Amino acid sequence: MRNATRALVDPFIVMDVMEAARAAEAQGRSIIHMEVGQPGTGAPEGARAAVAQAIHTDALGYTVALGLPELRARIAGLYKKWYDVDLDPARVVVTSGSSAGFILAFTALFEAGEKVGLGDPSYPSYRQILKALSLDPTRIETSKDTRFQPVAGNLSSDLAGLIVASPANPTGTMLDHAALSELIAACDARDIAFISDEIYHGIQYEGRAISALEVSDDVYVINSFSKYFSMTGWRVGWMVVPQDHVRVIERLAQNMFICPPHASQVAALAAMDCEEELTANLSVYAENRRLMLEGLPAAGFTQIAPPDGAFYIYADVSDLTDDSRAFAAEILEHAGVAVTPGLDFDPVRGHGTLRFSYARGTEDIIEGLARLKQFMQARG
Amino acid sequence: MRNATRALVDPFIVMDVMEAARAAEAQGRSIIHMEVGQPGTGAPEGARAAVAQAIHTDALGYTVALGLPELRARIAGLYKKWYDVDLDPARVVVTSGSSAGFILAFTALFEAGEKVGLGDPSYPSYRQILKALSLDPTRIETSKDTRFQPVAGNLSSDLAGLIVASPANPTGTMLDHAALSELIAACDARDIAFISDEIYHGIQYEGRAISALEVSDDVYVINSFSKYFSMTGWRVGWMVVPQDHVRVIERLAQNMFICPPHASQVAALAAMDCEEELTANLSVYAENRRLMLEGLPAAGFTQIAPPDGAFYIYADVSDLTDDSRAFAAEILEHAGVAVTPGLDFDPVRGHGTLRFSYARGTEDIIEGLARLKQFMQARG
Repeated sequence: MRNATRALVDPFIVMDVMEAARAAEAQGRSIIHMEVGQPGTGAPEGARAAVAQAIHTDALGYTVALGLPELRARIAGLYKKWYDVDLDPARVVVTSGSSAGFILAFTALFEAGEKVGLGDPSYPSYRQILKALSLDPTRIETSKDTRFQPVAGNLSSDLAGLIVASPANPTGTMLDHAALSELIAACDARDIAFISDEIYHGIQYEGRAISALEVSDDVYVINSFSKYFSMTGWRVGWMVVPQDHVRVIERLAQNMFICPPHASQVAALAAMDCEEELTANLSVYAENRRLMLEGLPAAGFTQIAPPDGAFYIYADVSDLTDDSRAFAAEILEHAGVAVTPGLDFDPVRGHGTLRFSYARGTEDIIEGLARLKQFMQARG
Repeated sequence: MRNATRALVDPFIVMDVMEAARAAEAQGRSIIHMEVGQPGTGAPEGARAAVAQAIHTDALGYTVALGLPELRARIAGLYKKWYDVDLDPARVVVTSGSSAGFILAFTALFEAGEKVGLGDPSYPSYRQILKALSLDPTRIETSKDTRFQPVAGNLSSDLAGLIVASPANPTGTMLDHAALSELIAACDARDIAFISDEIYHGIQYEGRAISALEVSDDVYVINSFSKYFSMTGWRVGWMVVPQDHVRVIERLAQNMFICPPHASQVAALAAMDCEEELTANLSVYAENRRLMLEGLPAAGFTQIAPPDGAFYIYADVSDLTDDSRAFAAEILEHAGVAVTPGLDFDPVRGHGTLRFSYARGTEDIIEGLARLKQFMQARG
């Protein structure tokens, strides 16, 4: 049967690593997972309890397309609490994870064939979702000098949009208020739609992450309950859009998604009351990060991006290999540690980089770092 | 901020009815809901119990993109049981509701700008999702003579795809094996991708629904746990694709959705063991349908499509009105019954049609029919 060219998106290379790790474990080997981009914890206890109750008291049928009104209001309140921004709950759109946010944003903003910029390295799915929606993902090569973030000087006038993430995946770097303001102003001046991926907000170690909504109302902000709220598999997130885009997004969401999963919305609402547990998760990440920043250089991974937030370390290993895929396979085979080759994040330069995740438990981090050190010493 | 033309999809007119019904109820009026396209029941008890348990024993993180292997295997088994078709579980893709199935199918199969045929009247979102994905929804006007289903003679050679639903929404009509075979053969001959929406399978009253997989392996079949399994708000469904499309769909799904909601997959797996409860739901629909087929003509709605399956009656009311929207508003106002104007399903002829849903409890149906009869007598 026919296939559209837009369907031929790239595979995730990390999937091969995960499959190799699974196979090794099936053979009885112990593998430390530094490849996975999700918390080791499940949803907060309060979120689980809320679903366990609702499941017997509520039919949990369709909600309205934009999400439960009380959840939208509560999310709007988060902007006051986190950023001192007054946000009209009407602008908050609950989505089926940030994935649905991207699909809605891209279809709302861009015609087929238009160019959308993204700074490399970046989250692999930006590029692939854009392609699947017949858009033209346009690579912006970033460097350590700009904390691996795009800057105004990178913006060509033929861009219809720009996606920025802070804290970023895979680097963990953040944009400060000045850098974010400059980028948004440059986009405004060129009629480039600005999409701010804030999925790692709340997971930060050096100052706090700045929301694009602190700078402008004329932006799309995408966020999720997957990371800070530790609810990956529930597929629930949100998006904040300009007031005059709410009706367009509502119609798209009604038709393309009907509504986000109802039980997940119930869980999300309750998760927002679980601050104690979420803060405890953060302490684990902070300790893991401390260990990584000490242990990775000690093992020989010395060239790393400044990890302001998220739970990743992006390392330049071009002095060690020119084939990150083979190097990751070697690390898995000989060290028993699964890591992600940089090619997923930067198809051009990723042959010389690796991403280490520290989202799991601290014991795993300690063991993983010891294995990496021993492996690198043996490798010489 | 900029908006793409493809984002400007039509509103659901039924939403205005629902809002008017809600407002009337808020004023203390009693409204019978014959506008809503979802079961009045929640997920089967066994499905709820499975989630209530998993929520405390499983982190419920991401699953693999194509869904839990045991769920895919179980769905494949359904094809043996329902249709005597041997289906490789590898061809089963668990999706975030049929909505995600449509998005995956359309992006996998069609380039921007291509024409995809759909028989009017039909499910409104086909047209709107196609438009949002930069495709060209191509109306095929159907008639009572072909049970409101497209036939081979309708297929122009410039179509890239065809969407067919049996049992259909809003008419409830089914395609028999001969009609389905003829359509699929005609599509094959013209390189038109055939997409079979089988979301109402299992809810049938006159013989059984035929799956496109009984006719050919070279089709896309889309289904869901929303209707027969009564799990609308859980957003979980499935798709069966040709063997050589599995890898393409997997990559698209990884990037566009990551995975379907984990808890919903747990619920879906357990729902497949809840035959007794599901059969009881069916008995309610069957009794409701019997009452509707007796009560609607008695009230004066005599021109109806043959409702072989689903839980809708589509009535031609062109002898009573030339403005179904105003007529639905009149019925809500004076009879206290919410119904859907046909314009959602057929933008051209829908000004003369209404859809009545009988998915709720039998008491509501009895009361609703009595109100409709009284209203029509008073209207004269």
